[in-house]
Amino acid sequence: MPDQCVAGIDIGGTKIALALADGEGRIVEGTRFPARTAERGPHAIIEEALAEIERMLGRTGARLAAVGVGCGGPLDRRRGLILSPPNLPGWDEFPVVKLVEERLGVPALLDNDANAAALGEHRHGAGRGYRHLVYLTISTGIGGGVIVRGELVHGVYDGAGEVGHMTVLPGGPECGCGGRGCLEALCSGTSIARRARERVAAGGASSLASLGTEHVTTQAVAEAARAGDALASQVWDETIEYLAVGVGNLFNVLAPEAVVIGGGVSTAGEQLFGPLRERVRARARMLPPESINILQASLGGDSALHGAVILGQAAAQSKGTANG
Amino acid sequence: MPDQCVAGIDIGGTKIALALADGEGRIVEGTRFPARTAERGPHAIIEEALAEIERMLGRTGARLAAVGVGCGGPLDRRRGLILSPPNLPGWDEFPVVKLVEERLGVPALLDNDANAAALGEHRHGAGRGYRHLVYLTISTGIGGGVIVRGELVHGVYDGAGEVGHMTVLPGGPECGCGGRGCLEALCSGTSIARRARERVAAGGASSLASLGTEHVTTQAVAEAARAGDALASQVWDETIEYLAVGVGNLFNVLAPEAVVIGGGVSTAGEQLFGPLRERVRARARMLPPESINILQASLGGDSALHGAVILGQAAAQSKGTANG
Repeated sequence: MPDQCVAGIDIGGTKIALALADGEGRIVEGTRFPARTAERGPHAIIEEALAEIERMLGRTGARLAAVGVGCGGPLDRRRGLILSPPNLPGWDEFPVVKLVEERLGVPALLDNDANAAALGEHRHGAGRGYRHLVYLTISTGIGGGVIVRGELVHGVYDGAGEVGHMTVLPGGPECGCGGRGCLEALCSGTSIARRARERVAAGGASSLASLGTEHVTTQAVAEAARAGDALASQVWDETIEYLAVGVGNLFNVLAPEAVVIGGGVSTAGEQLFGPLRERVRARARMLPPESINILQASLGGDSALHGAVILGQAAAQSKGTANG
Repeated sequence: MPDQCVAGIDIGGTKIALALADGEGRIVEGTRFPARTAERGPHAIIEEALAEIERMLGRTGARLAAVGVGCGGPLDRRRGLILSPPNLPGWDEFPVVKLVEERLGVPALLDNDANAAALGEHRHGAGRGYRHLVYLTISTGIGGGVIVRGELVHGVYDGAGEVGHMTVLPGGPECGCGGRGCLEALCSGTSIARRARERVAAGGASSLASLGTEHVTTQAVAEAARAGDALASQVWDETIEYLAVGVGNLFNVLAPEAVVIGGGVSTAGEQLFGPLRERVRARARMLPPESINILQASLGGDSALHGAVILGQAAAQSKGTANG
């Protein structure tokens, strides 16, 4: 363990993940604990996280230089506030950066977890070596991060990377954002399962019909589609078509060197990525087909934790350099 | 006129526009001539352009430092080749950069005209003062340019900014690119007029029916819509809806400080921009409504010529700096 290190904190709705990393950003110690956000307030959770970091520091004997924090949005990155994310009830205008800085006496930097995951995959995962890339995470919702010339694009009000709210079907199903036909309303894990349930409820013949409603998950749809179930195959096929609209738009607008997709739905692997590449090629015809590079994220559930460490490195170099 | 200047050449399907600019990029001399590309080969046209530049140089007594060239794509920016653009028959693998450099003895830089127009509006037009912006030109086709942190994003194979090929209506009308439902296939001047003609031909009651088919232009549709014609209003309204899908996607992905729209269709002014802003706000709900900043280009037909001058400035500073 080197003398100086940075810490990363990934705050999720169900778990808090922590890491200490050396000067090169290599994670040398890590731990995680259940968030139980409904039972405990944010102060207690952050207290536990900071105590864990101190324990890890004690074990390694390293000196902490800075901390990076990834958390679901909305948040105020510049002021270091978490602003009532849907998956963190009670985290209202929660000054996480100030608390970390006061308690540990080092600078801290906050960004949303999809941006953090984009940083993580860019530096250490499937996006390594690319300067222009877009990261998408497809799980209960769909988020993303845009990297241009090696740096995150935040945009006005840090609104860049909200790829889940591209319209992929005008007039389509309602989205949590209040709009209609957003990518998230059709292709998130929640939406894939909902579309399958609706068809089963409408009387469609399917092996999914024998499962209880709560067992018609995206994974069950993917499995049934692989087994040749017609209804599940249709739902899966439409999912890929809508996803191809969204990812195709990204190639047409940014021509990234790679689009990296993480999150639970991405674990379907080639069942998703094979046909997706084909269909994106048909929608981004201004690019040679071989330049359509769509990759599965390679850090699994740790993309955002790796990214939190990178935020910590940025905070260590100069508080504020990652605010560009 | 200062001692040193750069020249810009904007090569269009109908006209060639030329400018000399001082060290600050201010255009101090300009001229244009009809391209008559069908009658004359590209060599004769470039010869005339270079002779005009020499005449302008002679009049001003300034020394030429470099030349920037904007031209419709496809082109090979790095090799300085124009690759058979649809509006320039006979310009096949035409080595415009080499010809300009050999004849005038200064470095030259080529980019596509939509990227050039984005540079022009960014530096001298409606986009002045913004570091993150997307430019769209809506005329016979739809092109664009993406500027992040003050610089153009080119992407792989220079494919960034192909905003006209975002899908805005899956399964929609065929596009020149071979895809379906692209923004260009619904909202270009050509497409707006086509949609209106199709409805008139299908027997829709409209003041447009009394015009000859060839007079049902986008301008005629806009005028009839302003006068309250129901069919024209519906076509116009749908145009804005599809355009809002595309522009909304840009805000969701990049959260630019501004989207600047130029090209013939943009001259409809507030009849276009007023409702477009409202509808984009409804599609980019992760951003505060006041941050949705959509502006009419302010350099008229000269956006790309101004951009060509900026390419010339980049070539003067260091041949290749604009190739990032």
